[in-house]
Amino acid sequence: MHSAGKRILGLALASALSMAVGHAQTAPGLTGFDAAAASAEIELEGRFDKAIQPGNLKPWLERFAARPHHVGSPYDKANADYIAELFTSWGFDTRIERFDVLFPTPRTRILELTAPTRYTARLAEPALSEDPTSNQAAEQLPIYNAYSVNGDVTGPLVYVNYGVPADYDELARHGVSVKGAVVIARYGGSWRGIKPKVAAEHGALGCLIYSDPREDGYFQGEAYPKGSFRGEWGAQRGSVMDMPLYPGDPLTPGVGATPDAKRLAVTEAPTLTKIPVLPISYADARPLLEALGGQTAPEAWRGALPLTYRLGPGPATVHLKLEFEFAQKPLYDVIATLAGRERPDQWVIRGNHHDAWVNGAADPVSGLIAMLAEAQAVGTLAKAGWRPRRTIVYAAWDGEEEGLLGSTEWVESHADELGRKAVAYINTDGYGRGFLDAGGSHGLERLVNEAARSVNDPETSVSVAARARAAAILGADSADKRREIRARGDLSIEALGSGSDFTPFLQHLGIPTLNVGFGGEDAGGEYHSIYDSIAHYERFKDPGFLYGPVLAQFGGRLVLRLAEAQYLPIVAAPLAETIDGYVKELVKLGDTEREKIDEENQRLKDRTYQLAADPTKVSVPPPTVAPAPYLNLAPLQNASARLTTAAARFDAAVADPKNASRLTSAESASRLDAVLRGIDQAFSNEAGLPRRPWFRHQIYAPGFYTGYGVKTVPGVREAIEQHMWKEADGEAVRAGEAIGRAADLLDRATAIVTGP
Amino acid sequence: MHSAGKRILGLALASALSMAVGHAQTAPGLTGFDAAAASAEIELEGRFDKAIQPGNLKPWLERFAARPHHVGSPYDKANADYIAELFTSWGFDTRIERFDVLFPTPRTRILELTAPTRYTARLAEPALSEDPTSNQAAEQLPIYNAYSVNGDVTGPLVYVNYGVPADYDELARHGVSVKGAVVIARYGGSWRGIKPKVAAEHGALGCLIYSDPREDGYFQGEAYPKGSFRGEWGAQRGSVMDMPLYPGDPLTPGVGATPDAKRLAVTEAPTLTKIPVLPISYADARPLLEALGGQTAPEAWRGALPLTYRLGPGPATVHLKLEFEFAQKPLYDVIATLAGRERPDQWVIRGNHHDAWVNGAADPVSGLIAMLAEAQAVGTLAKAGWRPRRTIVYAAWDGEEEGLLGSTEWVESHADELGRKAVAYINTDGYGRGFLDAGGSHGLERLVNEAARSVNDPETSVSVAARARAAAILGADSADKRREIRARGDLSIEALGSGSDFTPFLQHLGIPTLNVGFGGEDAGGEYHSIYDSIAHYERFKDPGFLYGPVLAQFGGRLVLRLAEAQYLPIVAAPLAETIDGYVKELVKLGDTEREKIDEENQRLKDRTYQLAADPTKVSVPPPTVAPAPYLNLAPLQNASARLTTAAARFDAAVADPKNASRLTSAESASRLDAVLRGIDQAFSNEAGLPRRPWFRHQIYAPGFYTGYGVKTVPGVREAIEQHMWKEADGEAVRAGEAIGRAADLLDRATAIVTGP
Repeated sequence: MHSAGKRILGLALASALSMAVGHAQTAPGLTGFDAAAASAEIELEGRFDKAIQPGNLKPWLERFAARPHHVGSPYDKANADYIAELFTSWGFDTRIERFDVLFPTPRTRILELTAPTRYTARLAEPALSEDPTSNQAAEQLPIYNAYSVNGDVTGPLVYVNYGVPADYDELARHGVSVKGAVVIARYGGSWRGIKPKVAAEHGALGCLIYSDPREDGYFQGEAYPKGSFRGEWGAQRGSVMDMPLYPGDPLTPGVGATPDAKRLAVTEAPTLTKIPVLPISYADARPLLEALGGQTAPEAWRGALPLTYRLGPGPATVHLKLEFEFAQKPLYDVIATLAGRERPDQWVIRGNHHDAWVNGAADPVSGLIAMLAEAQAVGTLAKAGWRPRRTIVYAAWDGEEEGLLGSTEWVESHADELGRKAVAYINTDGYGRGFLDAGGSHGLERLVNEAARSVNDPETSVSVAARARAAAILGADSADKRREIRARGDLSIEALGSGSDFTPFLQHLGIPTLNVGFGGEDAGGEYHSIYDSIAHYERFKDPGFLYGPVLAQFGGRLVLRLAEAQYLPIVAAPLAETIDGYVKELVKLGDTEREKIDEENQRLKDRTYQLAADPTKVSVPPPTVAPAPYLNLAPLQNASARLTTAAARFDAAVADPKNASRLTSAESASRLDAVLRGIDQAFSNEAGLPRRPWFRHQIYAPGFYTGYGVKTVPGVREAIEQHMWKEADGEAVRAGEAIGRAADLLDRATAIVTGP
Repeated sequence: MHSAGKRILGLALASALSMAVGHAQTAPGLTGFDAAAASAEIELEGRFDKAIQPGNLKPWLERFAARPHHVGSPYDKANADYIAELFTSWGFDTRIERFDVLFPTPRTRILELTAPTRYTARLAEPALSEDPTSNQAAEQLPIYNAYSVNGDVTGPLVYVNYGVPADYDELARHGVSVKGAVVIARYGGSWRGIKPKVAAEHGALGCLIYSDPREDGYFQGEAYPKGSFRGEWGAQRGSVMDMPLYPGDPLTPGVGATPDAKRLAVTEAPTLTKIPVLPISYADARPLLEALGGQTAPEAWRGALPLTYRLGPGPATVHLKLEFEFAQKPLYDVIATLAGRERPDQWVIRGNHHDAWVNGAADPVSGLIAMLAEAQAVGTLAKAGWRPRRTIVYAAWDGEEEGLLGSTEWVESHADELGRKAVAYINTDGYGRGFLDAGGSHGLERLVNEAARSVNDPETSVSVAARARAAAILGADSADKRREIRARGDLSIEALGSGSDFTPFLQHLGIPTLNVGFGGEDAGGEYHSIYDSIAHYERFKDPGFLYGPVLAQFGGRLVLRLAEAQYLPIVAAPLAETIDGYVKELVKLGDTEREKIDEENQRLKDRTYQLAADPTKVSVPPPTVAPAPYLNLAPLQNASARLTTAAARFDAAVADPKNASRLTSAESASRLDAVLRGIDQAFSNEAGLPRRPWFRHQIYAPGFYTGYGVKTVPGVREAIEQHMWKEADGEAVRAGEAIGRAADLLDRATAIVTGP
């Protein structure tokens, strides 16, 4: 369900200039391998590349996306069976794991404008002759948001922009309350599940989410089928469960949704919404917005519909009635294993989901088929007698769209074993034409860069790393950023929030994780609609399937290098540098928030708002806020300094030729692996984040009020953002301890490398 | 024709923090007056305020705006006659000065889409029952741009965004040329006359300018008559003469358009456009834009019409035929004088235009009636026996809309006398509800602030200065700016570009000038349309005529203080500070441009553009540019340092009690005046700016490629912007000399103040 963004590798991190340090770049540039092993690896990858069969991608896409295949549907099960069949045929030890999860589907969807005029929303996407699979109405899920509660509400309408907390502050400045109202928010600005959550916190009765043509329609480009972009009746399905609390089956938090699992009652499930919520098209939104009165919306709130955006409340009054069948449905994860020859209890896990909202050609089938091409090539190597040093596990997840159901339940079911065995998880989801996009554990940043330098972009003559670097330079917003990108040996990788199956691995279990893909030149507009189809994909996403084989090459290199390396290819300096960047951001954030509060209070004291206000308009000054204290972020700063020292020592030890034998001896390298794979566990703690214990990682989490968007050092960052100063101080201690544990771990690793 | 902006006093200047220095703030805060004279002045202003008759404003507005009154029309002459009658009745020595100017009006206006579909543009604004004067079709000027040449052209259409030079660079990056094409630009981003000028420079055959609802329609607020904003058929008339070359009658550059003036042939007039140009409504633009193909326009280029903005060229093909009657028309400036009692040969001139594009209730009648209310009150004082120390001249200009015709011809006709006698010119134009807005010669910044502190805002309990300060604080884009505004005793005034009748006074003759008004809470949409009407004004611009009397009070204070002060109320420190700010900006601009060129060349060398480009789209890297040299701006920097020193010395001398007698003795104060009124002449030079000698001021000018928008230290700034490095060095010498002359003048003034 990863929304097709245009993020580009290397844009994520504002950090220091230096950082060409780390492991000495060996001739082949393969961290984790000595010269001989690197040569063997390069040779292996050459055979791997040849074993990729690009010709399979198109028939696979056309098979998997031929019919709607959401969780619980017959075609979803058929796809899972076929995937299992393929893995088996390639020599993997394959099984399907079933979980039974809550999956609501709509029985009643009524949305009416009842005053001052009448309009009944259509809530349907028309079949198009240009798109042959768009007419499979009987199998398509209707337009709805999964995990909305039932509701039958009528109230005045209020336009809330993106529906994030800051938007409600702005409404309050205009004297507009949503208490007893139905809100209409546009998609964008946050993950969709945040919108009904924040609306309910402010007393709204119901929530509509529409796709404004500004972000998702003709403003972006010609509408489908003339161009790729969302047409007037297109709407975005999607989950609205409170995933920042915990993902997965709402009824089985923290444990696998196995037949015997203890389940919450639906009414107790905390991740269902508090109010009914429905996504609508811009054609359905237009009459509602046209009927809105009240003040003209602030400029940044206005979309691309040909009307004056106003706030309400009313006179537009809407009636929203939603009823769902809260059924338990089976989901099918396909798990395929190739046992390791030397360290079979170290697992490199590679996954992509197989379920879709409707036909899902782009999301997720494109990523799935690239992973299958990769797995088939790995299978070909295995059939020729090769076995990886570590065990490789391929997974095709089900139920991702509804809330990472398949991956989360699998991770929760196998938590103990994964905690002992998993060395890394590599995720992909739908991809498109364009630029490499990578995020994850920063200890793996060097691995990503080395792999990216060894795979060629199909549109230019250069590596995907060189292309991503060019895009990052053009996308940089300052000369300093450009200088940094040019000076740095590696491109930065992003921190991960949520939005795909990496979340349970990284943020619940603390497994080193990467999420990779391509995109930025693929035109959008089909996301979570019936038009995410074969026809759309082959015209707009990756015509000719040029990037699928490239993603297979790239994902395959990550898997093969992690599986084959003599010691886990973790370079510590980028990790320490990145965390130190976060700590500096937090110090600045504390200052910024304090200054903002001081400025507001100064304005209130001086009556600045009152004097500048237009007396013919409602204008309510913000409330007075207590001045912010200075925060004690020293525990974070000291821990970060320790980590920087430990990281430099570790990288230097690895680079020192006199330690080489300890990196190649199976015995000491195996002990080293056991330590290195624990870094993200060190960053985690059992208690988890405040008010959401499922999220244990202290460095990366999805934002409580952003959803997919990452919050780094989330305990501290969100406490500062929400002005919970005591909590910020406390979380700084906890996050500092986590960083300290990682430094300890690196010291232990250094001791192994340097020997007794 | 000043477009209703939302500029707020105090937003203009990025400068140092200090600056509470300058003249010691005397108890009443009246620079130019000793304590006794200040008391008398305060008493005089009290009587002046009482003499203002707010009840006159509404009937005057309804009389002057009752019928269309463009230059050359019968009602324009009738208004001039009535204004003269009023001035005469108030005791002013009044005359009407006539000039004969080129004023083209359309005979043929045809705009057709000829392929791929057909559409004939309506080119007319419908009468509205809600707006009683909107049906005066027989007297209304049609929708057109004055000083377009004739033309009959057909070509593919290209969308050029705002049509400024940077937009053509962007088009080139997309491989799109406008050679042989008709361009369609949206209003905004520059003064309208720049659009056909730049289009012609790039080889276009014709130019359309339309009002996009993004800037000027429903995106901003509800359309007229429901709200105030421009409706689908509304269009913006306006002049497109090349005013940055010279304003006024195109046939008599530099001299008054008197009967015996030597005139150019129309075909020789350099300020007419090179290609035909026509303004259109968004309803007329929409079918043209919908028919455009080619690449999707960059995001920043997209407006608020419900379509995908594309660049073309074609397949949309348009036929544009324009024929004008190039007639000579009479214009009537009303000049009313109240002779000074002590220094009759020092003139304080106060003006506002009286002509309009159509009915012009807001532009210019609102400003005109506020000036008349002010003049009537001055007349009342005079009838009671008072005479000003210096002569006061009121002017109601004609032909402003077409290109500052009336003011320019009058200034050119009286250049010698004005050069000897004028001490200041105070301009207004249309105004609306809201915040004080002031710009002009920075030696008068203190005067503006003192006057603003003594006039109360009608909507709040505070002075217009306090209100402007509050708005400036909220509008500031950084904490530093806010700190500066709070710390500074005075609010900064803006530098003047063009767009109203101040230009010939300030930029041609070097007369100290101010342009003042109110606005920011008046809803727009009527600008230069038939809906700039009584009905629109009384609903949206200044309902209840609250701000007209305030503008009369404020303008009156400026006039009375300039006319009554014992010595001209010029404070030098803000002037020096402002110029030093410009010099620092220019140093930075030189660095920025050099770095930009270096960055581009680095990208070209590294093939960054090629690697990041989408190969399925046309993407042309920019041309290689020679590296920029380091500039010698030392002449400017040294001159600015000298001016700062001279300014501090002058202000200190004025503040020193032991010099008080020389400020109040008529003999020495009169000599001081003669020096101080020369500051803007010192800033000017006979040769004028490169390629536009009419513009002589070396500190303030309208931008050659922005039109109304100011370019400070224009010779240097525009040379840097256009990468004419040698010219930049040369202009730095010339501007430095001008600043040095002003410093000399201040030294002479100091010598007068400190005595022999």
